[in-house]
Amino acid sequence: MISVEEAQEQVLSRIVALDTERVTLLESLGRVLAADVISDIDVSPFDNSAMDGYAVRFADVRDASEASPVTLQVVDHIPAGVQPEIPVGPGQASRIMTGAPVPDGADAVVMVERTRAGSNGGSTGGTVEVLRPVTPGENIRSRGEEVREGEAVLLAGETIGPAAIGLAASVGHDTLLVRRRPRVAIVSTGDELVEVTVKPGPGKIRNSNSHSLAAQVLQAGGEPYVLGIARDTEEDTRALLKRAPEFDLMVTTGGVSMGDFDVVKKVLEEMGKLDFWKVAMRPGAPQTFGTIGGTPFFGLPGNPTSTMVGFEMFVRPAIRKMAGFTALARPRVVATLNHDTKKKSDRRYFLRGRLTRSPGGGYTAAISGNQSSALLTAMHRGNCLISLPEGESFVAAGTEVMCIRIDIEEGTA
Amino acid sequence: MISVEEAQEQVLSRIVALDTERVTLLESLGRVLAADVISDIDVSPFDNSAMDGYAVRFADVRDASEASPVTLQVVDHIPAGVQPEIPVGPGQASRIMTGAPVPDGADAVVMVERTRAGSNGGSTGGTVEVLRPVTPGENIRSRGEEVREGEAVLLAGETIGPAAIGLAASVGHDTLLVRRRPRVAIVSTGDELVEVTVKPGPGKIRNSNSHSLAAQVLQAGGEPYVLGIARDTEEDTRALLKRAPEFDLMVTTGGVSMGDFDVVKKVLEEMGKLDFWKVAMRPGAPQTFGTIGGTPFFGLPGNPTSTMVGFEMFVRPAIRKMAGFTALARPRVVATLNHDTKKKSDRRYFLRGRLTRSPGGGYTAAISGNQSSALLTAMHRGNCLISLPEGESFVAAGTEVMCIRIDIEEGTA
Repeated sequence: MISVEEAQEQVLSRIVALDTERVTLLESLGRVLAADVISDIDVSPFDNSAMDGYAVRFADVRDASEASPVTLQVVDHIPAGVQPEIPVGPGQASRIMTGAPVPDGADAVVMVERTRAGSNGGSTGGTVEVLRPVTPGENIRSRGEEVREGEAVLLAGETIGPAAIGLAASVGHDTLLVRRRPRVAIVSTGDELVEVTVKPGPGKIRNSNSHSLAAQVLQAGGEPYVLGIARDTEEDTRALLKRAPEFDLMVTTGGVSMGDFDVVKKVLEEMGKLDFWKVAMRPGAPQTFGTIGGTPFFGLPGNPTSTMVGFEMFVRPAIRKMAGFTALARPRVVATLNHDTKKKSDRRYFLRGRLTRSPGGGYTAAISGNQSSALLTAMHRGNCLISLPEGESFVAAGTEVMCIRIDIEEGTA
Repeated sequence: MISVEEAQEQVLSRIVALDTERVTLLESLGRVLAADVISDIDVSPFDNSAMDGYAVRFADVRDASEASPVTLQVVDHIPAGVQPEIPVGPGQASRIMTGAPVPDGADAVVMVERTRAGSNGGSTGGTVEVLRPVTPGENIRSRGEEVREGEAVLLAGETIGPAAIGLAASVGHDTLLVRRRPRVAIVSTGDELVEVTVKPGPGKIRNSNSHSLAAQVLQAGGEPYVLGIARDTEEDTRALLKRAPEFDLMVTTGGVSMGDFDVVKKVLEEMGKLDFWKVAMRPGAPQTFGTIGGTPFFGLPGNPTSTMVGFEMFVRPAIRKMAGFTALARPRVVATLNHDTKKKSDRRYFLRGRLTRSPGGGYTAAISGNQSSALLTAMHRGNCLISLPEGESFVAAGTEVMCIRIDIEEGTA
């Protein structure tokens, strides 16, 4: 048996980030940037007002107060988006809106709340009384203050969220260069499998793994391609597995246990370069990893829970690495286990569990359903995998245990 | 001014969940179930083996041990997916694979590790030695043990993750009835806006809000429809706003501040039933909410950060409620503020900040960039909004503050 970490390291050491593609801003959401995003403009592109108010000359209003307001002639009214043509001379001011360019001559903006309209309601041709002094440059955002043309606003390797999209748009990018999402082929194996729409006859079960896996692939940032069920014949298995090179990754379920009727292993040994591991974990001990025609290949066990846990431990980090992410481990938290648990001491247990936040700020972890179920109920109700270490055959209630959060993304604080 | 909570309550009291639609399993990922998912089968559908081993009669092997093994005649070999036809009589056993149906006569399964092959390698026609006793029913999963036909495995209102998809597939569902995702129209307003591909001339800025908003809508579980830029004329504004009834929700940015050149407000008052709020928050105080032709309408302020924060506070909860979610508030954590902050005492501040987990398990919060920026840099680098309450004009470093996590979903522990 090899440890979980050993298996994970071997997998990740043989996985590399994919090539890049250019996509629209909306398509880039959640992807990893493959090139710095460079600004084609100064931000701000021009000196502009941070407030609705009056553009003034500092020298005119340095002594303004409620008690002795300074009266200025209003010479212009500047909305956002309009280039002012009338300069502000001594004793003058221009009404100015937030974001509008500051006119020549003015070197500060007085907030409208600190003025009182004089003649003509404080509009052009009338007057305004300034009730407070300003400092030079007050309420003015200077050209290039935040970013200069040619500077990067986003860096290669960053994950793209809504704010990064807005940021890229504001400096001239309507597409972005990102890492490609891995195309992941999904194959289920076994004579016992029937499609979901078929009512299983005696000895048959439905192929649910293709569906849960497709959802896991999508959630991990890959593109799932469900190729179907390979029957327990060498021909059938070979026909599906040989399609591996059409994809960036292939995942199969079932067919690699010690059972006598597993032909997948034989075909795999013939077609690929593969390791058959017994990983010191439960569920999901038998794991196959290698390549078929150069494409990374994962053979997960066929029990639905084992499939999902195996995906979490080995396939998801691989997909994330291919997609360019650097954070590859799900967030972990320490929680207080709320029940005694017996286990085999030779392997790590990943119990399907539910974390709840205690009023004190810590976490409590409880199993989220029957752990030997053929159904995914406990996985569905859970939000974590409670990790019980090798070397222990009993973990008492109240013990602090490590929990792997499967409800939030890698890299989250 | 009204409080953030008052505004949120008023919004949510006027929003209802949308109708339902039937979608494929993969399309249902992340959606809210609108009907219980009922099993059409017993699970397990038949008594089956939980192990690779031998199906035996308890009475035959009750005294088996390493020292005095019990030798049984192997009469059959049952792979998964095949209905056995040969019963197990006294003194007999059948080789059985995990998941295979238990043959008549057998009432327990001995793990292969607790047997030794006898004649013919333990295969059919040969013998097997059983080295340990079993209990009645050991390693057998009984028919209907987990779910009976007609029982629900998932309930209306639950959020669909990969495990729920696998669970639904295993009980016969290849489509699911879910709440419809809100179709959200996005309109930017302002003469100062140019499209992203245009280099802004004097006084102009790029329309980045449509892009960041589209990404926020998608991430919230809605479908964004970017309708474009409404110029500051009544005709142009009216032409776009009158399209509201084509959608489930309309969001505009800009045009509802106190600025003189805002025509949006005038058109809104003529076309819709709207409230113009000054919310006691910064950024994002001016918020408009109401309906146009029956469609909920949000008017967010035009500054990119104000737009995003306003979306978080008011539009996202509305989208989530429409999509059927019951958890509408982002997770909150208490964190230690790492720097002194001055503020106006009449409103709540939402600083763009970054939470980091302290070694002790608590959180520290720091601002993630220039808070008065015209760019979304601080929003991009942040993972939370640091909430500084009304009534305070200074919050000292070391104070415990509430942070709204914008990096993880509502309802997360």
